[in-house]
Amino acid sequence: MTADAVLASRLRNLRSSAIRDLLALTRRPEVVSLAGGIPDPALLPRARVAEAIDRVLADAQSLQYGETEGDPRLRELVAARHGCEPARVLITHGAQQALDILARGLLEPGSTVVVEAPSYLGALQIFALAEANVHGVDVDDDGMNIDALADALASGLRPALVYVVANFSNPSGATLSAVRRRQLAALADRYGFWIVEDDPYGALRYHGDPLDSIATYSERVIRLGTTSKVLAPGGRVGWLIAESSLVRHLVRIKQATDLHSSALSQALVVDLLGDDAWFDAHVETLRRAYGERAEVLVDAIEDHFGDRATVRRPAGGMFTWVSVPGVDVEARLPDAIEAGVAYVPGRAFFGDGRGGEQMRCSFATGSPDQLREAVRRLGSALLHDGPIR
Amino acid sequence: MTADAVLASRLRNLRSSAIRDLLALTRRPEVVSLAGGIPDPALLPRARVAEAIDRVLADAQSLQYGETEGDPRLRELVAARHGCEPARVLITHGAQQALDILARGLLEPGSTVVVEAPSYLGALQIFALAEANVHGVDVDDDGMNIDALADALASGLRPALVYVVANFSNPSGATLSAVRRRQLAALADRYGFWIVEDDPYGALRYHGDPLDSIATYSERVIRLGTTSKVLAPGGRVGWLIAESSLVRHLVRIKQATDLHSSALSQALVVDLLGDDAWFDAHVETLRRAYGERAEVLVDAIEDHFGDRATVRRPAGGMFTWVSVPGVDVEARLPDAIEAGVAYVPGRAFFGDGRGGEQMRCSFATGSPDQLREAVRRLGSALLHDGPIR
Repeated sequence: MTADAVLASRLRNLRSSAIRDLLALTRRPEVVSLAGGIPDPALLPRARVAEAIDRVLADAQSLQYGETEGDPRLRELVAARHGCEPARVLITHGAQQALDILARGLLEPGSTVVVEAPSYLGALQIFALAEANVHGVDVDDDGMNIDALADALASGLRPALVYVVANFSNPSGATLSAVRRRQLAALADRYGFWIVEDDPYGALRYHGDPLDSIATYSERVIRLGTTSKVLAPGGRVGWLIAESSLVRHLVRIKQATDLHSSALSQALVVDLLGDDAWFDAHVETLRRAYGERAEVLVDAIEDHFGDRATVRRPAGGMFTWVSVPGVDVEARLPDAIEAGVAYVPGRAFFGDGRGGEQMRCSFATGSPDQLREAVRRLGSALLHDGPIR
Repeated sequence: MTADAVLASRLRNLRSSAIRDLLALTRRPEVVSLAGGIPDPALLPRARVAEAIDRVLADAQSLQYGETEGDPRLRELVAARHGCEPARVLITHGAQQALDILARGLLEPGSTVVVEAPSYLGALQIFALAEANVHGVDVDDDGMNIDALADALASGLRPALVYVVANFSNPSGATLSAVRRRQLAALADRYGFWIVEDDPYGALRYHGDPLDSIATYSERVIRLGTTSKVLAPGGRVGWLIAESSLVRHLVRIKQATDLHSSALSQALVVDLLGDDAWFDAHVETLRRAYGERAEVLVDAIEDHFGDRATVRRPAGGMFTWVSVPGVDVEARLPDAIEAGVAYVPGRAFFGDGRGGEQMRCSFATGSPDQLREAVRRLGSALLHDGPIR
C-alpha cells in the first residue's frame, strides 16, 4: 500500500470525537453546557502551582530530558498512594497515553476488547485505531453486567483485555459493585485476559465507602490513574500500574513514542501531590463542590422530568446518565442548544447504534443555579411536542 | 495471538536506546560525557520561565484541557516563523511524537523507509515499532548521498517516506547541501514518497549561511520542529508542518493517542517564543556557547589524534562524528569510561553492523577545558596498544 492508502485505511474506523465537535458548538456564553467532561476552571489549583514554581525551577532537571519511566519522585509518590512498589509505576502523558501504549503493546488488528456499554469515548477511539473488535457488555446501576460477560466467555468470547471505569464511570456514572469486582477478577484469572481498570474519578467520591480496586483480587489487572480530575488536565500527567515485568516492556514502547512525559509537569505534580495536607484539603474542596452539584442536577431532573425520565444518582465523579424514553435526544440536540443547554447524546458511547434515548450530563462546571436553569431548558427542548428540527 | 504473544512480537525489533542505557553508566561526576545529546543545563532558561508563570497562570486555560491541534497562539507563532498558514501546524508532545504519529498514519508493517546511515536513534526506534523495512543511504560531508538514493529508486526501491535531519544531523553532524535538497525534493515528486525533514538544530548554526528548507522545493515535505534544543526539552513541545489536509488527518490520530499536548508547556512556550527580543538574544547566547565548544572539541581531536582519526567539523548543532580507523570503539568503551570519558559507539546508528570504528561525540555540555581533557582521555583509551578488555 502507498502511504496515502495506509492513511485512508487508518482513518476509516476513527471518527473524530463527538464530544469535541460538540464542545466547539457550545462555547457561546449563553449556553449552559452539560456536555463537557472537564474540571471547573475555578477549581484548578493556579495559586498552588504558582507557589511551587520557584522550588521546581531550582532544579534544572525540571526543564531537561528525563527518564522514560517517569520522575523517580513521582513514581514513589504514586506507588505509596497505591501501596505498591515504584517499579510497578509508569508515568504517562495522561491516562489516555497509558491506554494507547497498552493497546500498542497488547493488541493486534482483530484482537477482541470488552468495554462497558456505554463506554468512555477516548477508549473507543484508541481501540478503533488499534483495529480491535470491540464487544460491549451492558451496564446497570452496579456497573458492567459480569454475568453477561461470563456467558459470553462461556460461549467462546476470548478478549485480550477488558476495559472498565470501575468508579463512577464515564459516561454512565455507575460503580462496579464489590461482588462484581471479585467475579471479574476471577474471570481474568480463568480466561487469561488483562483487566484495564481506569480510575480517573476514584478520589471524587461523594457518598458511600470506597471499594477495593479490582487489582486486590487478581494480578491480571492494569490500573490507570491521572491528575486530570484532581489537579489539572493541562499538565497531562497520568500513570499505569502493572506487574513490573509488564511495565519494563511497556517502557520500551513509550520510549520510542515520546522519550518521556513532561519533566516540568511531573515536577509540579511532585510538589503538589507530595504536600499531603494541601492535597487532601484540595480534594475535599472538590468533593464538596462537585458533590453538591451532583445532587442538584439529579434532583432537578427528577423534579422536572418526573416519570418522563430516569436518571442515575452517581456516588462520585462528574457524570450522570439520563434516559428519556420515547425521545430521540440526538435529533433534539439542536433544539436544546437553541434553548441554551447542551449534553452528549448517548449513541456516541455505544458501538451498535443504541443510546438514542439516552444522554450524558456533566454537573462539574455549572453552579447550582445554572444547573437548575439547564434542566428547565432541557425540559423545554426535550418534552415539548413540536416538530423535530 | 494472545495479548502476551502480541507484546513479545512488538518488542522483538525494538531495542532499548543504547544512548539511554549508556547515560545511566556515565552519571559519575568524574566522567566527562560526550555521549549525551542534551542541552547544557546552565543554558536552560529557568529565570525566564519563572518570570512567565504568573502571566501564564492568569489564564485558567493553561491548566485545562486544550485543543488537539495545539494552542492556537502557538500554532500562529510557529506558522509565522515558518512562513506558512497556522492550519499547516500540528503541535506535538515533542518532535518524537510527531514522528510517531507520522509512522502510525503513513506506515504499515513492511513499508519501506529511507534513513541516513548513520541515523537518529529515536527515528530508528519508531520505524522498528512500526515494523517498517529500513533502508539506509550513506552520509558524507554534504549529507545523504542523493545519487545513491536515486540509483536505489531507479532499481525499484519504493519508500513510503524518506527521513532526514538536513541541518547538522544527529549523529553525523553533516548538513544536506542545497543542491541535494533540490534533488531530493525532485525525487519525492517523481516517485511519490513523503520527505520528513526533522530540524531540531536549525537555529543553532555556528558558521555559514542558512539553507532553504527542502519544503521550499516540494509539497511532499513534512517538517518537524521542537523547542527542546533552543528552549527546554523538559516541556515536550514540538510540531509538525505539512499540507493542511494531511494535518487534519493526523490530528485525529493524535486525538486518539493523547487528547492534546501539555497546555501549560505550550502556554509557557507562547510566552517565551513570542518575546522576540528575549528569544533572539537567548538563541544568540546558545550559538556563541555551543559554537565555541564545537571548535574546541574538533580542534582538540585533530591536534591529539592527528592522522589516526578523521573528525567532521559541523556547521551547527550538538554533534561531531569521529572515525578512528583500526580501532573497535565499542570494545574500547569500558576503557574510555575507566579513563573518565564517554561517547556513543557508531554501530547503534546503523542498521547493518557498520560504524564499529566510528563514534558520536557531543560538545554541548562540556566546558572548553573539560572538552580538551575529554580528548586527552579519549586518546589514552583508544590509541594505547594494550589488550581490549
